[in-house]
Amino acid sequence: MEDSLARPLSPAGLSCYVAISQFLGLTVIAMTGAWMGQFRGGIAWQSLLQFNVHPLCMIIGMVFLQGDALLVYRVFRNESKRSTKILHGLLHVLALVIALVGLIAVFDYHRKNNFADMYSLHSWCGISAFSLYFIQWLMGFSFFLFPGASFSLRSKYKSHHVFFGIFLFILSIATCLLGIKELLLFSIKTTYSSFVPEGILANVLGLLLITFGLLIGYILTRDEWKRPPLAEELALSMDFKNLTEGESPSGSQ
Amino acid sequence: MEDSLARPLSPAGLSCYVAISQFLGLTVIAMTGAWMGQFRGGIAWQSLLQFNVHPLCMIIGMVFLQGDALLVYRVFRNESKRSTKILHGLLHVLALVIALVGLIAVFDYHRKNNFADMYSLHSWCGISAFSLYFIQWLMGFSFFLFPGASFSLRSKYKSHHVFFGIFLFILSIATCLLGIKELLLFSIKTTYSSFVPEGILANVLGLLLITFGLLIGYILTRDEWKRPPLAEELALSMDFKNLTEGESPSGSQ
Repeated sequence: MEDSLARPLSPAGLSCYVAISQFLGLTVIAMTGAWMGQFRGGIAWQSLLQFNVHPLCMIIGMVFLQGDALLVYRVFRNESKRSTKILHGLLHVLALVIALVGLIAVFDYHRKNNFADMYSLHSWCGISAFSLYFIQWLMGFSFFLFPGASFSLRSKYKSHHVFFGIFLFILSIATCLLGIKELLLFSIKTTYSSFVPEGILANVLGLLLITFGLLIGYILTRDEWKRPPLAEELALSMDFKNLTEGESPSGSQ
Repeated sequence: MEDSLARPLSPAGLSCYVAISQFLGLTVIAMTGAWMGQFRGGIAWQSLLQFNVHPLCMIIGMVFLQGDALLVYRVFRNESKRSTKILHGLLHVLALVIALVGLIAVFDYHRKNNFADMYSLHSWCGISAFSLYFIQWLMGFSFFLFPGASFSLRSKYKSHHVFFGIFLFILSIATCLLGIKELLLFSIKTTYSSFVPEGILANVLGLLLITFGLLIGYILTRDEWKRPPLAEELALSMDFKNLTEGESPSGSQ
């Protein structure tokens, strides 16, 4: 709490970890693009190449943007809580929209080619992750941005919102790993065991996805990197506490 | 801290969540056994059935026992810290030994059948998870059970030990999901899309594995369910703090 008065621009180490996470996230997107471009014929909305829109959109939306949305309370620690919340919500909307384009691409590709839908573990995990992510967004909006929810209700829901947010991010990465595996076994099953370049590229992509998740998780779970409340938020929360005699929120997210 | 004086046998809800997690964990093991027994011809150390030892051992060791080892500080909250630590360490040893048997089974099966090793994303993730798990155990033993490490060093390492412990548990589950996917696409690739019973069983197994991980993660991250220090540990930690003038440990794990 003493730190909230001094408010250093950013705690030692945090900026460095955030920079590495962004570099990793962009590398993962570039590698997915390179995989689709170099080995899977490129990306287009028409023709068989429509499938290739799917991995790229899911990695950008459900991994990179979702991960970055989780980081905003750490990165923009000196902005007002409301602005940070709005940015958090908007990044998740952008993630949802891009992921939706990726989902439409794969369902449309299946329909045009008479392939079955929703039979694989990847698809079961993916549709669960996307639906729960949408529900999580609606819940977050209703509790934290819509003005109806009480202070006490918000502080009770907050730890669950944070826990399920991290769970959905992990589930999204696990679903991407399953997707990588599925695409490899459908496209290079016979040569995969010969350590062909496409297989190695996709395996390294999988490991980098895990490392991206590990870094985001590490940044989010360091107590010393949590956003301390601004002085005016602290005063406001004390007022609310006195008014409602409810639980005191921790202030940091 | 006030709770540590009253020490209720178990906080409301914790026992219920732990019971559900155990039921789920045992269901996951039973379903893996049923999958191997019913659809993959059974389990044996000789013949082609040697492969089937691998999924069963990895699920028992790297998922069920590893998950249970993480719970001991919540479940045995009224036992001494040292006894709980020893149980935590022993459960991880048991998990490592059973996982090692599972690894030997698959490498031996590959060798006997001239199949390539270590080319797939599943194998890269699996060998990383197992090696890091072994290193994590060695580090945990050196810091927390071996008498050499100072109180201040232990308290600095503890949050990293907990974070990487949970990460390795998640990585183990993700690796199992990749393994399920790999086995399905090697054995029922042509019929998987027709919703055959084996495919549905394996998909449900994947979802239950995720739910088991979700439950264990939920139990571990509830602040109110963390193990409060016993009265004598609290006194001891204050003595150490005065002696070393180092950081105070949080006491709970």
